[in-house]
Amino acid sequence: MSLNLTILGCHSATPRVNAYPTSQYLEINNRHFLIDCGEGTQRQMRKYKVGFSKIDHIFISHLHGDHFYGLVGLLSTYGILSREKELHIYGPKGIKEVTLLQLNISQSHAKYKTVFHELSSNKSELIFEDDKVSVSTIPLNHRVYTNGYLFKEKEKPKKLHMGNISNYEEIGRADYLNIKAGKDITLSTGEIIPNDELTLPPKKALSFAFCSDTMYKPDIVPIIKDVDLLYHEATFLADREDLAKKTKHATSKQAAQIAKDANAKQLVVGHYSGRYKDISLFQKEAQEIFNNTELAVPGKNFKIDAE
Amino acid sequence: MSLNLTILGCHSATPRVNAYPTSQYLEINNRHFLIDCGEGTQRQMRKYKVGFSKIDHIFISHLHGDHFYGLVGLLSTYGILSREKELHIYGPKGIKEVTLLQLNISQSHAKYKTVFHELSSNKSELIFEDDKVSVSTIPLNHRVYTNGYLFKEKEKPKKLHMGNISNYEEIGRADYLNIKAGKDITLSTGEIIPNDELTLPPKKALSFAFCSDTMYKPDIVPIIKDVDLLYHEATFLADREDLAKKTKHATSKQAAQIAKDANAKQLVVGHYSGRYKDISLFQKEAQEIFNNTELAVPGKNFKIDAE
Repeated sequence: MSLNLTILGCHSATPRVNAYPTSQYLEINNRHFLIDCGEGTQRQMRKYKVGFSKIDHIFISHLHGDHFYGLVGLLSTYGILSREKELHIYGPKGIKEVTLLQLNISQSHAKYKTVFHELSSNKSELIFEDDKVSVSTIPLNHRVYTNGYLFKEKEKPKKLHMGNISNYEEIGRADYLNIKAGKDITLSTGEIIPNDELTLPPKKALSFAFCSDTMYKPDIVPIIKDVDLLYHEATFLADREDLAKKTKHATSKQAAQIAKDANAKQLVVGHYSGRYKDISLFQKEAQEIFNNTELAVPGKNFKIDAE
Repeated sequence: MSLNLTILGCHSATPRVNAYPTSQYLEINNRHFLIDCGEGTQRQMRKYKVGFSKIDHIFISHLHGDHFYGLVGLLSTYGILSREKELHIYGPKGIKEVTLLQLNISQSHAKYKTVFHELSSNKSELIFEDDKVSVSTIPLNHRVYTNGYLFKEKEKPKKLHMGNISNYEEIGRADYLNIKAGKDITLSTGEIIPNDELTLPPKKALSFAFCSDTMYKPDIVPIIKDVDLLYHEATFLADREDLAKKTKHATSKQAAQIAKDANAKQLVVGHYSGRYKDISLFQKEAQEIFNNTELAVPGKNFKIDAE
């Protein structure tokens, strides 16, 4: 399996002609998640061909407009598209009231049910889990209550080493489940074939961490340790660290420090302040600390195939 | 003076890559109004270079998402832009609660004051007036409480006929205000110079009517009689008059009939349903009844100079 992140919007504050507020689409182990939903997200979803009907779970980091003003429009569109499947929304306490008030006032009665999962804890918690992935919160520090989200593939079963298995006529299909589960096989001769000989290591379970908006918060490092792909906000460059601190945002240098300390494989920065005309400076600044840094750009894909 | 309408968005229902929900920017007699504010309106305002700070009055027709989901984002942007001037918002009862809840939840405290004018009457009423223009409601018939808006320039003062005035040495600057006010002038000889000789007729006071969303409602004709520019929704073509009736929308043919009956000078149709790929059919259908029909297209201007 693979992990595939598509940037839908990656600018801060206000929508402009070519600047879309935060939204990302994540495919991970055959699950499809939308993360944040600034104004214009549904337009960006259409532009980058994100299947509306694939998404059953939407994660909102915090209730600043540039991260959720596109949500009610998307829910409304699901109604117009005659969606029937349940839709799950995760976000700060209050998200249910503000969303339902808007939907109810328009008297648009959708066929589908929206299930709100309101968050208020300041500790990391598991908020979604199935047989393929798990999602946990990453408590962040911004001007309002904010969570990042850690998406992890479930550990995968061992793979059968067919080359070695074929050396033993006696081992057949009936044994495969036991082998995948890690068991040794005892032949009729009494000889024990160790599981390691019959299996290959499973593909690595991948992970993605979304951290926005937040000031530099080193205590998230243990939560996102060894993550394969880290999106961390970088609203400012280091020259405005004072402003970053005041507005509870991070600099690109600080994002890179988090990536380095967490031993992330790759860093993506975004949420650029409109004051910077040349966003390549964000990459340059981060790369002095963490070389494998990329810039978020609308439509850009970050795809990781498991080893 | 002149009237200048800019279409910002003109499609129905859901935003798509090249389809923006309803919003229009009207300059009339040096006043600047925003009419409806679907998702993405502020992006369109930037694209078509509408000065954010010029707008002090926003008119919302009804509380369906494609006509107001962009409002809260715009208000939020005004806060970020440090607006200090009062902003007036006119719309159906309920608009205040739904807007303030969203703004308050983000804990963004703007410096400017928003004044809500909530509407609930089913009769046409004057809702704004100054020395330049007046705005009245046009009660419409849609699935939820809806108003169109009639924007009218104030009658203008007579213009001085300088050519004729110069025939009378005795008439000077001190008389101009009286002449403009329609008074005759008595010379020292006792001769009375009639006002008509000293003045030219004033430029015509222009008017614009915005009618969306609504089913065919002929009783609006007296309200918009002789309007210079009429925007009337045309969600469907006549082949789907049944669907128009069911969803309380109009066909292009019906929009043209209203324009004809109201003796409008020009008709603009818009709010096209996404089912129609070729919007030129809306113009063709309307022109069979009302020839001077144009299509709403994002960025298109309709400018009328007074005769």
